[in-house]
Amino acid sequence: MDNKTEQESYKLVSREYQRQDTQIAIKENIIDSNQFHVIAGPCAVESKEQILETAWAVKEAGATFLRGGAFKPRSSPYSFQGLGEEGLKYLAEAREETGLPVVTEVMDVRDVELVAFYADIIQVGARNMQNFFLLKEISQLGKPVILKRGQCATLKEWLMAAEYLLYGGNPNVILCERGIRTFENYTRNTLDLSAVPALKDLTHLPVFVDPSHGTGKRELVAPMAKAAMAAGADGLIIEVHPNPEKACSDGRQSLNPKDFALLMQDLRRLAQVMAREMVQKE
Amino acid sequence: MDNKTEQESYKLVSREYQRQDTQIAIKENIIDSNQFHVIAGPCAVESKEQILETAWAVKEAGATFLRGGAFKPRSSPYSFQGLGEEGLKYLAEAREETGLPVVTEVMDVRDVELVAFYADIIQVGARNMQNFFLLKEISQLGKPVILKRGQCATLKEWLMAAEYLLYGGNPNVILCERGIRTFENYTRNTLDLSAVPALKDLTHLPVFVDPSHGTGKRELVAPMAKAAMAAGADGLIIEVHPNPEKACSDGRQSLNPKDFALLMQDLRRLAQVMAREMVQKE
Amino acid sequence: MDNKTEQESYKLVSREYQRQDTQIAIKENIIDSNQFHVIAGPCAVESKEQILETAWAVKEAGATFLRGGAFKPRSSPYSFQGLGEEGLKYLAEAREETGLPVVTEVMDVRDVELVAFYADIIQVGARNMQNFFLLKEISQLGKPVILKRGQCATLKEWLMAAEYLLYGGNPNVILCERGIRTFENYTRNTLDLSAVPALKDLTHLPVFVDPSHGTGKRELVAPMAKAAMAAGADGLIIEVHPNPEKACSDGRQSLNPKDFALLMQDLRRLAQVMAREMVQKE
Amino acid sequence: MDNKTEQESYKLVSREYQRQDTQIAIKENIIDSNQFHVIAGPCAVESKEQILETAWAVKEAGATFLRGGAFKPRSSPYSFQGLGEEGLKYLAEAREETGLPVVTEVMDVRDVELVAFYADIIQVGARNMQNFFLLKEISQLGKPVILKRGQCATLKEWLMAAEYLLYGGNPNVILCERGIRTFENYTRNTLDLSAVPALKDLTHLPVFVDPSHGTGKRELVAPMAKAAMAAGADGLIIEVHPNPEKACSDGRQSLNPKDFALLMQDLRRLAQVMAREMVQKE
Repeated sequence: MDNKTEQESYKLVSREYQRQDTQIAIKENIIDSNQFHVIAGPCAVESKEQILETAWAVKEAGATFLRGGAFKPRSSPYSFQGLGEEGLKYLAEAREETGLPVVTEVMDVRDVELVAFYADIIQVGARNMQNFFLLKEISQLGKPVILKRGQCATLKEWLMAAEYLLYGGNPNVILCERGIRTFENYTRNTLDLSAVPALKDLTHLPVFVDPSHGTGKRELVAPMAKAAMAAGADGLIIEVHPNPEKACSDGRQSLNPKDFALLMQDLRRLAQVMAREMVQKE
Repeated sequence: MDNKTEQESYKLVSREYQRQDTQIAIKENIIDSNQFHVIAGPCAVESKEQILETAWAVKEAGATFLRGGAFKPRSSPYSFQGLGEEGLKYLAEAREETGLPVVTEVMDVRDVELVAFYADIIQVGARNMQNFFLLKEISQLGKPVILKRGQCATLKEWLMAAEYLLYGGNPNVILCERGIRTFENYTRNTLDLSAVPALKDLTHLPVFVDPSHGTGKRELVAPMAKAAMAAGADGLIIEVHPNPEKACSDGRQSLNPKDFALLMQDLRRLAQVMAREMVQKE
Repeated sequence: MDNKTEQESYKLVSREYQRQDTQIAIKENIIDSNQFHVIAGPCAVESKEQILETAWAVKEAGATFLRGGAFKPRSSPYSFQGLGEEGLKYLAEAREETGLPVVTEVMDVRDVELVAFYADIIQVGARNMQNFFLLKEISQLGKPVILKRGQCATLKEWLMAAEYLLYGGNPNVILCERGIRTFENYTRNTLDLSAVPALKDLTHLPVFVDPSHGTGKRELVAPMAKAAMAAGADGLIIEVHPNPEKACSDGRQSLNPKDFALLMQDLRRLAQVMAREMVQKE
Repeated sequence: MDNKTEQESYKLVSREYQRQDTQIAIKENIIDSNQFHVIAGPCAVESKEQILETAWAVKEAGATFLRGGAFKPRSSPYSFQGLGEEGLKYLAEAREETGLPVVTEVMDVRDVELVAFYADIIQVGARNMQNFFLLKEISQLGKPVILKRGQCATLKEWLMAAEYLLYGGNPNVILCERGIRTFENYTRNTLDLSAVPALKDLTHLPVFVDPSHGTGKRELVAPMAKAAMAAGADGLIIEVHPNPEKACSDGRQSLNPKDFALLMQDLRRLAQVMAREMVQKE
């Protein structure tokens, strides 16, 4: 890291370069600083039934996007590694049925085209925030990208990673705070909500928050989701599972559909005070 | 730190021990989970005029307590070290005039009686969270205490520190999250708002948040203050200075009276959604 | 991260599974707990002349492997990104001339075969420690791998990443501590030397240390290199550049050939006390 | 923390102010960069027998100072809090019998005179590194002080704390690295050995290392003690207990006398390579 270079290390993502907020249109949804979007769904796609059931539940509660992982980057080789392309197909079916656009993660440069074929928004996970080859590949696509913050990435490093995407030609980038690693181990990560207003000053890109990974405990998800909105976030990613106790991964941090629906009600009331529009799909 | 002992290391502060929220009455104010209180004022008492001017301004905006430091624990011996007892007297005068109860920090066991004589709430700062001799001394008083989280204290260590106060006989303890030290240096500290709902589960004590120290940048104070309320905090401590650019310490994170008044308006609207009462003094 | 799964999350890398130290033979060199090897060279291959000059210099001083980056994972898209395959060819030429086996990093799954063709040891950098697709690809090769610790990886996560390599069929894995990210910013990273004896207890794999990235400051490299040997490390990776002030990257942490030679002398004397053999190539 | 002030925030402790190393004479011992001293003893003084037995054992092995805590700053009020003045008296008796000067911690400003009466070196623990009132009080004494690094203190903050001591009139200050708090929890703290050569550049004060607190695991103490010497430390503080399994505190990180004697042998051989003198008392 060469300090001199670093000081001029991002440009296209900065507020100085572009004053007005970036707007990203995905079907009828506009991601910007007026609307507030909630992306919900299970950590991993486990079966057709599971993803369909979840899709209908989160749509009914007011989510505007469906999330689900087909390729799972697990710390241990002995953990469930995802359904792969089969999972992507189930996601596409759930989109057909419910009309919800889908968000899913790509981890391998060789899968970028495949994932882009199925996904409406491509997610780059925390572990790949500085996988520059992956970023370069994705930057060639026009498809919207959610770029999650690396577990130990500074705001500056995160913005430089986003710069790879814009520099490569893709302006449709959404940043997503998902917690950083600190000494505190009561929570899985420490959700750094101050990143939200800080990024709003530094960049014109939309900023989302993932309180599920950010806390790792379902009982903390609702308060932190509300706090994220109050801090100025443009949207949320929330893990919802029809039966969290039986989830293949991350069950401890997933909401069940009922608790998710209650949270959405609270968010809708909060949105009024925060001058945010939350669209309810039919 | 002996793990076996640690597992039984706090009791009186836990939710298991006492289900209902602790209520702390200070003059006509009740600190609990119904009312929402804002403690405001300068980092350091600098002069009689400065503290009086600030007191009137924050009262008018809706603050219910006045804060100000008389003894300043500065990292370098060459920095301004506070006015000492003279500062305490100015605080008392400001209370006489405005009716606002005052909050000020004690750092030396030998000053506990002196500070308790002037203060309505005694503050224990982050650096003294594990100054167990100071905690023991303060535990002898019935006077309410704000116990700030240490810069690298886990929730458990914080609760054990609070246990010293209750164990010594003082049940009137308010916890205050003020940011933890992490690798991120865009902000002065990383404000750990997930500590708020986590503590609400673990303990019956009121939980406040200090977004001024928590971020170190005034432009982040208002969004994080709102986020704190949305996360379930029972109150805030906010640094306000009539002229932040000329402050003897921490000017970079202080709001001016006008911005503070705007924030208070936002908080009042948010309080309605969060079912919180914000009393306006006459 | 599912705690129950995690507890059984590595097996092949553990001391319980294999008591005796892994030995890795690379040409006439044996990497194990008897010999002590120093891998030296520039951060990035910049030109044929630069790599050849460095190769001869580090060989003369006693290094047994040459390092150099052809693909450079830079935080900003505007920084020097490496010479690519041209750099690999220069490394191979340097090997031809000096006889030193070469170590170089692979970052893209699509480059694994290419890099494996040129390299004697493949390096997986800190940012890719949990790039599981890359690990799976490399695990198919028999070629030795240096797996650097992720900047915020726990020892357990690191061992699970190594498990991917052994599980996939590649037992020739060397772990390399290179510093973790902490609040301290005097050094670029905090070199966690306690990881060395800890890993020696937990795993049978060789453990190297990179004091150049670990500190980011050349004046700290020599003392930390000696400390690494005293802590029980099996080898070192050290950045050496013929002209550190003009380096394309990481010049601030590179030794010049003269200081490197002095360090090697010190290490040789220390090796006698530590019962380590340091082979000098002819 | 006012950045402008901070840049001029220490002076007396800096290498610019005083080029030559500080020398501290304590009885016949000289603490400087020629001799290498090991301070050993139990975490807490538990009984007269325990401290006497330990004193003789560590002296025989080559320790030149005896340590032991009389006042114990424990995280929980329910843990053993030390013997107080009785413990100080036992330490003094052990000094009478063995001739070893004693090192013990003071935590309360009101105990400074008392502790100074019994101790040859006063220790300021990690939690009190920024207890500026305590530092001011101790700075009035001429007695040597060991100032441990705070758990989340930067090098700069540590040097500013030391500046309080020199500024107040006490030049006899020894710095002691004892591990910082990071995300890694395999070890109790992360021992930052790079602080040793860094401090040697920045300050003329002697630098010690405490591998017992720094790792929290006895099997890591010996390798890290050797690494500390190789990194350039001027001495060590090591916890030794006649029966670590029965220690009132910190048994998990204490060596038994036999393992301590083996470590001292290794250190003596290493000292020859490092050009350090280790005096053996008669």
